[in-house]
Amino acid sequence: MSPASLASFLDQARTTVDSALDRYLPTPPASPALVCEAMRYSVFAGGKRLRPVLTLASADAIDRRNHDRPLDASAALALPAACAIELIHTYSLIHDDLPAMDDDVLRRGRATLHVVYGEGIAILAGDGLHAEAFTLLAREPPAEDPAIAARKLRVLRVIGEAVGSAGMVGGQAIDLQAAGQAPGHALTLTAETLRSMHARKTGALIRASAVCGAIMAGADRVLVDAIDRYAGDVGLAFQIVDDILDVEGDPASLGKTAGKDAADAKPTYPAFFGLARSRQLADECAERARQTLTDAGLTAGWLPAIADWIVRRRN
Amino acid sequence: MSPASLASFLDQARTTVDSALDRYLPTPPASPALVCEAMRYSVFAGGKRLRPVLTLASADAIDRRNHDRPLDASAALALPAACAIELIHTYSLIHDDLPAMDDDVLRRGRATLHVVYGEGIAILAGDGLHAEAFTLLAREPPAEDPAIAARKLRVLRVIGEAVGSAGMVGGQAIDLQAAGQAPGHALTLTAETLRSMHARKTGALIRASAVCGAIMAGADRVLVDAIDRYAGDVGLAFQIVDDILDVEGDPASLGKTAGKDAADAKPTYPAFFGLARSRQLADECAERARQTLTDAGLTAGWLPAIADWIVRRRN
Repeated sequence: MSPASLASFLDQARTTVDSALDRYLPTPPASPALVCEAMRYSVFAGGKRLRPVLTLASADAIDRRNHDRPLDASAALALPAACAIELIHTYSLIHDDLPAMDDDVLRRGRATLHVVYGEGIAILAGDGLHAEAFTLLAREPPAEDPAIAARKLRVLRVIGEAVGSAGMVGGQAIDLQAAGQAPGHALTLTAETLRSMHARKTGALIRASAVCGAIMAGADRVLVDAIDRYAGDVGLAFQIVDDILDVEGDPASLGKTAGKDAADAKPTYPAFFGLARSRQLADECAERARQTLTDAGLTAGWLPAIADWIVRRRN
Repeated sequence: MSPASLASFLDQARTTVDSALDRYLPTPPASPALVCEAMRYSVFAGGKRLRPVLTLASADAIDRRNHDRPLDASAALALPAACAIELIHTYSLIHDDLPAMDDDVLRRGRATLHVVYGEGIAILAGDGLHAEAFTLLAREPPAEDPAIAARKLRVLRVIGEAVGSAGMVGGQAIDLQAAGQAPGHALTLTAETLRSMHARKTGALIRASAVCGAIMAGADRVLVDAIDRYAGDVGLAFQIVDDILDVEGDPASLGKTAGKDAADAKPTYPAFFGLARSRQLADECAERARQTLTDAGLTAGWLPAIADWIVRRRN
């Protein structure tokens, strides 16, 4: 994997991930046709694949650091984790879009899953993707080598903790409470709980994406920690930019309803800090992320460019 | 673990499992208080703990067969799997009870989770338990020993496959289709698809419960297969008796609304075969299960008595 630019790396990584997802997703008759169809509808809805891209880019950075070569053998080792994380991300979007949660009818420019298949099947498709993700991690890559088995168990734990009640699920619960959707348990957000909510809701899985790539490529504890700090800053920048784009973005290029956060009285960075200061905060995150890479000797590869891409994106 | 009767084995196993679940479940401030509270509400709602009991009884049967001793060391190895399966079972009940699914307001004699905490938090508590289950399997027991690591990865895969779209989730999807809750995708059940629905919806996780106990106790492929066949028959008997109790059971001892299946036009065994033939089918399952144990030399311990308990239970 030695493409000439970030754009071509992103293209290659997305093609690799999409084709692996297609291979990994269940098919009839082993699984009922309707639930297979519903899962694919959401998985292949044209996402950015930020998380699997981070997994592969992190494995690549570790390979360049430790073996002075771009990603190759490690791609095979890291690819199942990259795909499992995208399956989990997709499940979380399906459940977040439900009427009882954010009640969104449009996602990535298409009708959301529950609009097309009904709420029951949408809940189940999310649950199915959640389970398939862990099954995939347990199954792939094959682990006759005890070192690989140990890495897989670490990855399973890192992802499980990132998406459970301490991570993604906990962040979404805080979000519901702040939006007044948990009867009798409303919560008023401060800037600090806003940060904590985002750290859980989107930050934890973005960090896990990068960390799992590093673990599968055989990074030692010091490098894994550096990748984790890098991804923490990238994840926060991503969320701040997401909030900014919801205020000033173009619905056509966003693929979702702009201004929805404000309409829903959602806690956001621009609401707390204003647009200019929010933009500055995002830039500071990207700068810290790049500095972490420099300090750890991880500047070869695509991680620095990904940090820039995250803050400059328009959708 | 050498109690005098099945009743005392069940008591011991349930106490062990409940105290481990209490230890394993997340607590604030690592996870937000509300989601911790919601998860515990459903986990400690007074279930039969059939699945973890099967996990521990299967580990015990393998220990008696291979080492001529009742369960002891293997209890520690099998206990995390037993608890993870109960967490998954609980998550599935929470999601099944949602208005978009079976729309149940009463479960084990108490208001269902979404009635108490709202639908959003109920969906999230289910998702949280689902993730905690896999995190627990990845984390416990510690696996410095490569043989234990390999068993853990097998167990993760067995459970993932049992609960994913080919198993539990797929069975629930067929159920929704048969009940006319998947717009545009209604399905008319035959006796064969009824069997397949139950094999997925409840059978797969019950089989996984027993199989994982055997795997963690170090059973070879032949013994794992025997345990799997045993549990397949026990699971089917369990489901048939469930359907029978819904027709003739006493709501007070059932802890849920009797007659609900018929009111919802749910596909059931009594609806297809009548009560007398359904009762006979359940007895035949228990008889086959016992025969499988005899053939495999697995009659020591509690597995034969559990098969009898399943068909004789009144709630």
